[in-house]
Amino acid sequence: MMRTGSKAIKSVSGYDLTRLFVGSEGTLGVVTEIILKINPKPRATSTALATFDNLEDAGHAVTEIMHSGILPSVLEILGRETLVAINQNTDLNLPEVDAMLLVETDGYTSEETEYQMKKILDTFRKNHAQEVKEAKSEAEVTELWKARKSAYAVLARIKTHFVLEDVTVPIGKVAKMLRGVNEIAKKYNLQIAAFGHAGDGNLHPQILYDGYDPDQVKRMEAASGELFNLAISLEGTLTGEHGIGLSKARYMTLEHDPVAMEVMRSLKKMFDPNNISTLARWRWMRKCLK
Amino acid sequence: MMRTGSKAIKSVSGYDLTRLFVGSEGTLGVVTEIILKINPKPRATSTALATFDNLEDAGHAVTEIMHSGILPSVLEILGRETLVAINQNTDLNLPEVDAMLLVETDGYTSEETEYQMKKILDTFRKNHAQEVKEAKSEAEVTELWKARKSAYAVLARIKTHFVLEDVTVPIGKVAKMLRGVNEIAKKYNLQIAAFGHAGDGNLHPQILYDGYDPDQVKRMEAASGELFNLAISLEGTLTGEHGIGLSKARYMTLEHDPVAMEVMRSLKKMFDPNNISTLARWRWMRKCLK
Repeated sequence: MMRTGSKAIKSVSGYDLTRLFVGSEGTLGVVTEIILKINPKPRATSTALATFDNLEDAGHAVTEIMHSGILPSVLEILGRETLVAINQNTDLNLPEVDAMLLVETDGYTSEETEYQMKKILDTFRKNHAQEVKEAKSEAEVTELWKARKSAYAVLARIKTHFVLEDVTVPIGKVAKMLRGVNEIAKKYNLQIAAFGHAGDGNLHPQILYDGYDPDQVKRMEAASGELFNLAISLEGTLTGEHGIGLSKARYMTLEHDPVAMEVMRSLKKMFDPNNISTLARWRWMRKCLK
Repeated sequence: MMRTGSKAIKSVSGYDLTRLFVGSEGTLGVVTEIILKINPKPRATSTALATFDNLEDAGHAVTEIMHSGILPSVLEILGRETLVAINQNTDLNLPEVDAMLLVETDGYTSEETEYQMKKILDTFRKNHAQEVKEAKSEAEVTELWKARKSAYAVLARIKTHFVLEDVTVPIGKVAKMLRGVNEIAKKYNLQIAAFGHAGDGNLHPQILYDGYDPDQVKRMEAASGELFNLAISLEGTLTGEHGIGLSKARYMTLEHDPVAMEVMRSLKKMFDPNNISTLARWRWMRKCLK
């Protein structure tokens, strides 16, 4: 048993063992207690939505906003495939454009959130936004969020199976990544819908397929591999927030050089010399596959 | 040679090797390149200063502000010893109170910084601030910062030697820590002036002593040890921002349990099995002491 970290806001005492465990997915040891600091809810927010006729314009708008010194609290993107799928399965009747951006600013006062929002909407318009809509009431905020909130659930029901990736690229490369997703979908004749956190460069391409059809499974796997290769070639990462797990383990060498891989292996060996956590995973996998 | 981290804003791919190296003070390997993200300068700021007749009032004000949902960009504290020392060595003519707090808020607009500042000044007054002064011009901002900016340099010149600690405690315990610093100073008949980043719970007690007087050196060392013990007993840390280095290495077991110490030793052994960096430190020490 060991405790890491400090109750003080700042500490640089010794090696940062807390961060070593964060994201280690139970491979180094079992975490039995976590103490967290929680940020208060923002006092004021502003919400808006913009549609773009082409991906590059949306991508440039995102880049420009994130480099402007304004930090939106939400900057989400929905690609055309996602919008079409939502329309086919709900009565939201969304505009079927190349990209829809949902943005929110937060702060202490509405003057502050409005100041930020004005700069953002100006940036949208400068980058040829087709339509820009700002919420004027709580009801309108809920309305603007509907498309984004329904994306995952709608997409998950279309085919018998899906995989949801979370490839992440530098902000300036969001449009390139989205265009690449569309090309990979076409190449493998698969439906891949993309949405995600554009302001983080974090996209969630959701590959829809029939898991009972071995040919579709094969194409899904090949498409996944290409998505990872594309993200890395754009100086991105395999996973922005969900972790490596079992499914992305074999792609790690795309991102990490041989020395880093060796260091990670040594760390694993140091904390878990008998490979207890890996064996437990395999046992769990075997049980699931029965 | 290995590269860690990602150019993407977010990545949870593999173990967090970047954070393992940050703060490792060259003991795990040599860092040859660092890529940083820089935050833009705030567009608007507000600055104010408050004096308190007793430490507890100042401590309560700090705690209340940091728990209010308002996040000041600066919340500095100067103790009585520091204010007296500055007055004795400059013509700033500061009020010699138990605690002086310097506060700054930042944001996109002056409405925003003023909104935050109003809440903070109300909190100061509610906690019996003696005097509250808000800067109305750039010149007044410079004036308010003078005391804080001169503290280190003034204190460093008073005796032939000094040690500057950076003990850090949970925010609610800043007043207790400062009172403890005063008691330790009295016990060891040493001048210990304290100032620091109250909003972080990060204090810099500066122990002034004559390094050519073996008795004073002995007392300074004993006082240092008590400062560390006090910080840890208040659930704080040996070092908030400056690191362990050579001088605090022997106190690490106060903060870290035996398992954590063993893990750190194993990490050190894994990265530097021949102890190259430790030997280099000792060589450097020997050279300095010649």
